[in-house]
Amino acid sequence: LELSEDDCIDRLASTGHGVLATVHRDRGVDAVPVVFAFSRGRILVPIDTIKPKRTTDLQRTKNLRADPRCALLAEHYSEDWEHLWWVRVHARGSVCPEEALDAARRVLAERHPRYSVEGSIAAVLVLDPESFSGWAASQ
Amino acid sequence: LELSEDDCIDRLASTGHGVLATVHRDRGVDAVPVVFAFSRGRILVPIDTIKPKRTTDLQRTKNLRADPRCALLAEHYSEDWEHLWWVRVHARGSVCPEEALDAARRVLAERHPRYSVEGSIAAVLVLDPESFSGWAASQ
Repeated sequence: LELSEDDCIDRLASTGHGVLATVHRDRGVDAVPVVFAFSRGRILVPIDTIKPKRTTDLQRTKNLRADPRCALLAEHYSEDWEHLWWVRVHARGSVCPEEALDAARRVLAERHPRYSVEGSIAAVLVLDPESFSGWAASQ
Repeated sequence: LELSEDDCIDRLASTGHGVLATVHRDRGVDAVPVVFAFSRGRILVPIDTIKPKRTTDLQRTKNLRADPRCALLAEHYSEDWEHLWWVRVHARGSVCPEEALDAARRVLAERHPRYSVEGSIAAVLVLDPESFSGWAASQ
């Protein structure tokens, strides 16, 4: 059954992780796993220094600077398909400005305690939702 | 640590589900959860009649017809970040031709027993991998 926007937001908030798809000029699309938190109708995605990566100047950030259109998909998968659900947000993404970064870090640390560590978040992407859709196999 | 191509393929095959990102002219990107199976170096994604949807003439198919570039991301998420891993495939997607459909259905039914039911797969998308990448927090 289709989910209401409120239900989509509740499930996104409770999950806190998903897949972020962005536009890449040559490859067409990129997709990366992300964690996130909700704050005042926006989705905050940390570029952290915890999960190892080559650099914090990531392709996802370059992609959003070149084309802000993106989609975030969160899902619950189970071999028992009666319990499937997914939520998708189409959004416009940008890099959190310096003056809002401390507040964003606090929101993320509240949702994901690992981010309480000083210096664990190098930057934050801000996704402004344009539409929500979602589906669940059962209530 | 970065995963070898063989390790990426092993993990994809064992998971059998992920998120498919495709190019959409207006929205930039679309992302949908999918199940899949591996066969002879290709990834088979069923358009099934089991998980409810409005139609089997899906946006993902239209997107791939307009632009075959796509990415499939499979991941294992855990609140314990020591067990995270993900694998991404950039690929070109197309619709499985009629004459290859029965063979594709058999491969999918072997991987996902629910598809043993006659008529459960309306169509199959075929993804031809162009590159694999993957990462795991630990061995």
